[in-house]
Amino acid sequence: MIARAAETGRRSRVCSEHFGNLRYQRVTDKLGDLPRGTCMFGETVIWGYPSIGRILRLESGLREQFCAPLWVEEKMDGYNVRICQVAGRVLALTRGGFVCPFTLDRLADLMDLRILDEHPELVVCAEVAGPENPYLHGHPPRVAEDVALFVFDLMRRGMPGYLPQREKLALIERYGLPAAPVLGHFQPTEWRRIGEILQQLNASGGEGVVLKEDSARSHRAKYVTSNSSISDIRLTIQSIKQLPPEYFINRVLRLVLFLDEQQISRDRALAEGLGDAFLDGLFSAIEQVKHEHRVYERYRCRFRDRRNAERLLRRIRAGDRHIQVVQRSLERVGDYYVLEFDKVLPNMTGLLGHVMSGGLVYD
Amino acid sequence: MIARAAETGRRSRVCSEHFGNLRYQRVTDKLGDLPRGTCMFGETVIWGYPSIGRILRLESGLREQFCAPLWVEEKMDGYNVRICQVAGRVLALTRGGFVCPFTLDRLADLMDLRILDEHPELVVCAEVAGPENPYLHGHPPRVAEDVALFVFDLMRRGMPGYLPQREKLALIERYGLPAAPVLGHFQPTEWRRIGEILQQLNASGGEGVVLKEDSARSHRAKYVTSNSSISDIRLTIQSIKQLPPEYFINRVLRLVLFLDEQQISRDRALAEGLGDAFLDGLFSAIEQVKHEHRVYERYRCRFRDRRNAERLLRRIRAGDRHIQVVQRSLERVGDYYVLEFDKVLPNMTGLLGHVMSGGLVYD
Repeated sequence: MIARAAETGRRSRVCSEHFGNLRYQRVTDKLGDLPRGTCMFGETVIWGYPSIGRILRLESGLREQFCAPLWVEEKMDGYNVRICQVAGRVLALTRGGFVCPFTLDRLADLMDLRILDEHPELVVCAEVAGPENPYLHGHPPRVAEDVALFVFDLMRRGMPGYLPQREKLALIERYGLPAAPVLGHFQPTEWRRIGEILQQLNASGGEGVVLKEDSARSHRAKYVTSNSSISDIRLTIQSIKQLPPEYFINRVLRLVLFLDEQQISRDRALAEGLGDAFLDGLFSAIEQVKHEHRVYERYRCRFRDRRNAERLLRRIRAGDRHIQVVQRSLERVGDYYVLEFDKVLPNMTGLLGHVMSGGLVYD
Repeated sequence: MIARAAETGRRSRVCSEHFGNLRYQRVTDKLGDLPRGTCMFGETVIWGYPSIGRILRLESGLREQFCAPLWVEEKMDGYNVRICQVAGRVLALTRGGFVCPFTLDRLADLMDLRILDEHPELVVCAEVAGPENPYLHGHPPRVAEDVALFVFDLMRRGMPGYLPQREKLALIERYGLPAAPVLGHFQPTEWRRIGEILQQLNASGGEGVVLKEDSARSHRAKYVTSNSSISDIRLTIQSIKQLPPEYFINRVLRLVLFLDEQQISRDRALAEGLGDAFLDGLFSAIEQVKHEHRVYERYRCRFRDRRNAERLLRRIRAGDRHIQVVQRSLERVGDYYVLEFDKVLPNMTGLLGHVMSGGLVYD
């Protein structure tokens, strides 16, 4: 975050990209009203998915942020894609505005694409989540293998904003699309009932909810469970040097505010879970440096078309100069090509390598 | 840290200060060879105490950093002062180069000042540590009340560098000065023996050691225990928004590297202790905001001269615009004036106030 902010002044906020022979412009940082990830394919603009604010308290957050009833939808722990048709071709764009070769490869497995044939002006906003995704560790417990897709919004090409919730639900139903679960429709005063939903999600490993005002302005806010904060820490601690340093502290703060408001008692297991979330990944990083001289995260995902696996690796390599990608295997297994690769984390590798070989640090 | 680095380009690295009618120049950021905290009183320069690097591994750190035998001294958990005579007047300078009204007030209680009468060219470098100090929470277990002073180095006015260890020890002995315990003299290969010292310190609540090469270059390095890292987190988590965000993560990393090298087994108590170190202060901060609408740390310290208590509060107020200081009481108790004050932490107060009243955050 810090690095990105510092760079903003120096580079253009729009850059040219291509995917195969398709050329387009991508907004790399919020530019006026255009969110990061907005893509311009000639005359066709696909607006970026807006950034959604987070509340850390339910009672006051509902009271302050919402002035009409609201839908509560489950927030799925995955990566955000916009699926759309451009010049007769279906694309899947990541939050940042890259075409994702993995999502595109698997799209026919993940959803019925008739909606885009019949409504080519629509943009399907969805979370792709599951243990076999190429971007992040952590996934909803209900997706036990591979990945699944959960539609949570529809937008229109060339337009900001979302389709109204009922219109979205009708289209999801008509086309039989997999969707993020809608958990209810509540008044902003009903924080206790929404709190019960959050406690259930917390107990069952859910990430949290997105609250969507049932009104023309369609205001939104996120709210997540304490266990998802612990899980985030556990799964990302090895990337400590790549993430904004506030990342971890923000999650501890969310956790504490959630437990306090939901009156979940602090027990030994909670403190132990939080402590272990910090310790596990760091002990494992030390072992990696001792035995393999590098710190890495391992990913595995399956493709229909082998070439998309190669495109994905090129995409990841091009997208983050801090990450080195090492392909471990790409093998045919049944109907799929299964790719395994490691993301080497050079900052953590460098730091641990330095201090474990006796280097000094100043702080 | 980030804020300071960003400001470096914009402001002068030397600024004028005064203490009563004494005017001097203070180096606010490293300036060539001059460390931060170097002070210039007319012709007399008191060099800043140099920043000492830290090793996070003992075996490799000793091998890489030291090419001669080394002294192992206990690192006392307090604040660093330089005590010196300038124009016939005794001063106590903080690390940053401010005259400390608290240390000065209590100096006669803390050490025999004859050394400066007989050697006015010397600068006594010491740690002032104890539960009743105005700067930091955390203290060596052996200082159960008030504060104590521990001399760890002698320098000379107008000169960088330290007196040789044996010369320092002879002067400490001659003048009966309280000193940081010298725990031994070792070869750089004797990491296991030094490790045993660290394990004892870890068990007894010690902070760690400073390793001082027994050679002309007098190279140094710090090395701290895992429990001191947990203790740091516990005692400073409320100041989370004032500290560099890496502060906490660095300590978790130190902790893990220490435990791994010292082969201290990970048990439930360790994870629980680390988790609680994060949780305790944040739960307490939430309670403070609920009941008092602010997050603060409480301090208590005793003075001989009531005016020095007032000078101290002015000093703290002037030194950090992020901190508000609220005096709670200043009362005569026996031979002392006992001051109690709160440092209000406006960043944490602001953040918690915002989110607890339902505000949105973006991340």
